[in-house]
Amino acid sequence: MNRIFNFGAGPSTIPLSVLEEAQKELVDYKGEGLSIMEASHRSKMYDEVHTEAMALTRELYSVPEDYDILFLQGGASLQFAMIPMNLSIGGKAQYVDSGSWSSKAIKEAKIQGIDYEIVASSKDTTYDRIPSDIKFDDNADYAYITSNNTIYGTEYHEFPTTKAPLIVDASSDIFSCPIDWSKVDMLFAGAQKNAGPSGLTIVIIKKELVARAGDKVPTMLKYKTHADKDSLFNTPPTFGIYMFNLILHWLKDNGGIEAIQEKNQTKAKLLYDAIDNSNGFYVGHATKESRSFMNVSYNIKNSDGENNSQLESKFAKEATEAGMIGLKGHRSIGGLRASIYNAMTLDGVQALVDFMQKFQKENS
Amino acid sequence: MNRIFNFGAGPSTIPLSVLEEAQKELVDYKGEGLSIMEASHRSKMYDEVHTEAMALTRELYSVPEDYDILFLQGGASLQFAMIPMNLSIGGKAQYVDSGSWSSKAIKEAKIQGIDYEIVASSKDTTYDRIPSDIKFDDNADYAYITSNNTIYGTEYHEFPTTKAPLIVDASSDIFSCPIDWSKVDMLFAGAQKNAGPSGLTIVIIKKELVARAGDKVPTMLKYKTHADKDSLFNTPPTFGIYMFNLILHWLKDNGGIEAIQEKNQTKAKLLYDAIDNSNGFYVGHATKESRSFMNVSYNIKNSDGENNSQLESKFAKEATEAGMIGLKGHRSIGGLRASIYNAMTLDGVQALVDFMQKFQKENS
Repeated sequence: MNRIFNFGAGPSTIPLSVLEEAQKELVDYKGEGLSIMEASHRSKMYDEVHTEAMALTRELYSVPEDYDILFLQGGASLQFAMIPMNLSIGGKAQYVDSGSWSSKAIKEAKIQGIDYEIVASSKDTTYDRIPSDIKFDDNADYAYITSNNTIYGTEYHEFPTTKAPLIVDASSDIFSCPIDWSKVDMLFAGAQKNAGPSGLTIVIIKKELVARAGDKVPTMLKYKTHADKDSLFNTPPTFGIYMFNLILHWLKDNGGIEAIQEKNQTKAKLLYDAIDNSNGFYVGHATKESRSFMNVSYNIKNSDGENNSQLESKFAKEATEAGMIGLKGHRSIGGLRASIYNAMTLDGVQALVDFMQKFQKENS
Repeated sequence: MNRIFNFGAGPSTIPLSVLEEAQKELVDYKGEGLSIMEASHRSKMYDEVHTEAMALTRELYSVPEDYDILFLQGGASLQFAMIPMNLSIGGKAQYVDSGSWSSKAIKEAKIQGIDYEIVASSKDTTYDRIPSDIKFDDNADYAYITSNNTIYGTEYHEFPTTKAPLIVDASSDIFSCPIDWSKVDMLFAGAQKNAGPSGLTIVIIKKELVARAGDKVPTMLKYKTHADKDSLFNTPPTFGIYMFNLILHWLKDNGGIEAIQEKNQTKAKLLYDAIDNSNGFYVGHATKESRSFMNVSYNIKNSDGENNSQLESKFAKEATEAGMIGLKGHRSIGGLRASIYNAMTLDGVQALVDFMQKFQKENS
């Protein structure tokens, strides 16, 4: 097999050893005579996977005991609606707008007609940074941030402090670095970047927030429904949770969250250095202080400093031919983007850096 | 491999050839150098799967052009809430209560505070039949039925006729027999019985219903959001859709819906005959007119006609040892249940019938 390097933003690369393990036991799970995806969600065979995935999430991510871990569906996009539904209790909700995904979350607060406010935004500078001077009202029903902005390649390196419950959309950087839970009251993510195939949403939420929702919230959209039943109220996405569990094992086998953070920093440094040392041929979208360890968004510039979209297209095309896919930037800002999630290897980033240097020589 | 016969109610058995194909290409999808579950939902590679699954659904199920086919998440349980949210327009919603799942759907109408009514119920006879004399109001916002009742083993063999839009929860009998679309305006199902692993919800809905929802419906819970974007508004459960597509191919290769219906009838007859010819040792839960082709719920009786729960437990235990799992009835009615969905083979049902006869000899 000629395995490619997948720099796509999500669904994204999965550790090869995890895929191989899933392949090995896909038809006959541990000699049980059936696939894990055929097993009842009430069976002992599946329950072990489910329970283990919850326990490993708690262990690896150091989740305190007063938080519930939920396995839901619908992606982060459904969380945008569930958050105001469950957590708005007549007060004000406060949001930071750091990009497309924050904007989508804010839109759902608006649709539901709750009292909401944007306390900081970097929209004016094409979301090239995490807004500074974020001041949440300690009395807000909740305060909301997007920890990593997949499209613009920005990431919080420290979370703002507030007495209001802080909600973090960590869809594109979950499990990439340790979390200071004293600052965070709820963290959620679609699985398809750092935690497996799409179709699973992980929600880690303080028990006191779970209890907030009123009687008018539909059963399936209420955190309490799922918390009360260990996410087995209805049939969960069992195969996705199985894959997630394999990934957690891989994380643990490779030293856990601190070790993956170090690896992520090494990978990101390699790539940002290549950009910074290109004499202005490659220019990062994000300001240096706000650079993401997960998504590196950048442009190819003409000598006059303008983006060269023709060369960017050529780059993406030739990179694909060289076995590196998913490097085209998001349609909203164009350019190039390399997503270097937990499962992207250092070899992959090195191959990209080598290709960038070769491409620059040939095209400048 | 010693493959067992899985009579579980869901997640449930998947055709072996489908599992083997998925296994073969799990790590390297058609020589692309990555797994299908790693592919972007915007990639050509995934798009072919997505488009094919929609086209095959339409072709095999003869879905008319004025219906949208949607791939959603959250299971049938989330549909219970989405239906009143999207389709209630100030008039009355009418439900038939034919079992636990209908009751759950009705509960969500109540939570949302819409005007609803139960027009028929078989609750008084422990849901042992599809209620007769169903009379919907032609002016209702919608009329709601559960085509197959997984727990009680009952199934509609003809849908009621009404001018109101008829909504059908076909979670446990989708793709098991042809649908008369002139009677049905929306049909939905969780995938985990006849259409693959859990985590995918299939909704087939008339375009004029899609347009109904007002501005207050959250984006992700609005059918229109997904219809407008071919179910690619956000990241869909790509691996589940891939598995669903393989199952549709298997259905087509085996003669399509009419052929599977015939096979299902043969399997069900074999099993019901075994029950009916047991001199009252085995007794079906459902009345003969309402018997399901998918879920056969039955009891073992004492000579006085009482259920013998001790023998039922023994049956389930010994069946498991003989390589037949999932035969314990649902906790709400106890007894035994054999789920014989599309992917259950005739050999499997024959093995069960043989076991039943042997068990009766040994225990009566």
